[in-house]
Amino acid sequence: MDPESEMLSLRKSDLEQMERVYRLNFVNSLTGFKSANLIGTISLAGKSNLAIVSSVIHMSSSPAIVGFMQRPTSVPRDTYQNIKETRYYTINHVHKNFTDKAHYTSAKFPKEISEFDTSELTENYIENFPAPFVEESVIKMGISFIEEYKINASNTIMIVGQIEVISLPSKLVSDDGQIQIQDAGTVNISGLNNYHEAAIIASYPYARVDNWPINILKSK
Amino acid sequence: MDPESEMLSLRKSDLEQMERVYRLNFVNSLTGFKSANLIGTISLAGKSNLAIVSSVIHMSSSPAIVGFMQRPTSVPRDTYQNIKETRYYTINHVHKNFTDKAHYTSAKFPKEISEFDTSELTENYIENFPAPFVEESVIKMGISFIEEYKINASNTIMIVGQIEVISLPSKLVSDDGQIQIQDAGTVNISGLNNYHEAAIIASYPYARVDNWPINILKSK
Repeated sequence: MDPESEMLSLRKSDLEQMERVYRLNFVNSLTGFKSANLIGTISLAGKSNLAIVSSVIHMSSSPAIVGFMQRPTSVPRDTYQNIKETRYYTINHVHKNFTDKAHYTSAKFPKEISEFDTSELTENYIENFPAPFVEESVIKMGISFIEEYKINASNTIMIVGQIEVISLPSKLVSDDGQIQIQDAGTVNISGLNNYHEAAIIASYPYARVDNWPINILKSK
Repeated sequence: MDPESEMLSLRKSDLEQMERVYRLNFVNSLTGFKSANLIGTISLAGKSNLAIVSSVIHMSSSPAIVGFMQRPTSVPRDTYQNIKETRYYTINHVHKNFTDKAHYTSAKFPKEISEFDTSELTENYIENFPAPFVEESVIKMGISFIEEYKINASNTIMIVGQIEVISLPSKLVSDDGQIQIQDAGTVNISGLNNYHEAAIIASYPYARVDNWPINILKSK
C-alpha cells in the first residue's frame, strides 16, 4: 500500500447514511474473502432447487459439522423450505469454469422452476443420497440437517448440518489430508458478485511458541 | 479436471476412522476458502491479545453485523475472555506481506504474553476505540459485542458483533461501494495453514431472471 494514500475513517452512523446498494457492496466486502458453494435441494413434491451461497463455514471436524447463513425468510426461500421438508441438502464447490452459471442461480426464479434447468448445470444423484448434487462440481458433499439458530442481531438463520457423504478426485488430496482446492479451480467471492481464483502463497506448520521465525512448508 | 481421475467416495464412517490430524486437514479444506483476519482484544487488566481466525463471516449490512466462531473453551481462550470482559474487539485483514506473523499468533502463548509482541505486529489504538488494532492491516474494523450462540452440534460458540468504526484507504473503494480487497493484498485460507492470494476472474451484475447469458461487468 502507498503510505500516502488517503485513509477513510467511518463510524456506524456513516454506514447508516450510505445509499442502500452502496452499503450492501461496501459492508459485504469488509469481512474478507468468502467461500463459493452451490446448495442443492429438492422438495417433497420432487422439484429441485439450486442456490449459490457465500456463507458456508467449517464448524468442527469430528463430528464433521458445517454451517451456512440463510437470509431473512421475508421473501420465499425454496432452499430453506426444502431443507426443512426433507432434512437433506448438498454443498458443491463453485469452480472458475462456471461462475456465470453459479451466479445466475441467485436470480429470483418462481418455485416451479429449477435453477438446475435455467443455469444449465447438471442435476446429479449419487450413492442414493436424497438431495441433488451438481455434476460439474468436482468437490461435493451430502449434508443432513441437524439444527438451526435464529441470529437476532442480523435477523438471519444459521443452518447447521453434518457431512454424510463426500465425493472428490483422489489426486486433490495430499498425504497429510489437505485438499488442494486451488488446483480444483475452486473460487472465492468478495462483496456480492466478485469471483476470484486463488494462488497459494505459503503453507506453515502448526504454530508453536518456540518456532520463530516460522518455517515455511511450501511457498509459491 | 482430468475426467479420468480416480474419484474418492467417502461416508461419515470413513471420516471417523481417519487419523486425527489427517481428518483436521481434510475436513477443514472441504468448505472452500475462508477469510483471514486477526482479532485484537485487551483485558481489563490492560494485557493485549491477538489471534488469527478463519471464521469471520458477514451477517447483515444494515445493521452491519459480523460473526466469528470460537473454538471450545476447554482450553483457555484469551480472546473470548477479553471480549466478554470489555465487550469490544477489532477485526483486521491479514495481507500477503505478513502471513507468517499472523500465523504465529496461533501458537499457545501464556496469558501474560501479548501476541502483538511475539509476532512483531504493531498494536495501534485509533479514534479512542477501546480495543487494539493491527497497524499493518490496511482494512480494519472496531466491533462491539452483541450476543453469542452456543452451537450444540459442533460444541463451538458463534460471537456476533456490530461494526462501530472502519479504517481503510479510500482508493480501495469503487464508485459503487465495493472494496477491492484483492488490491489490498488481503489473503484467504484453506485448511488450517494454507494462505492464498486472490485474483479477480469476473464481476457480474445483480442476477435477474431475464438476464441470461449473464453479462460480465469486469473480467481478468
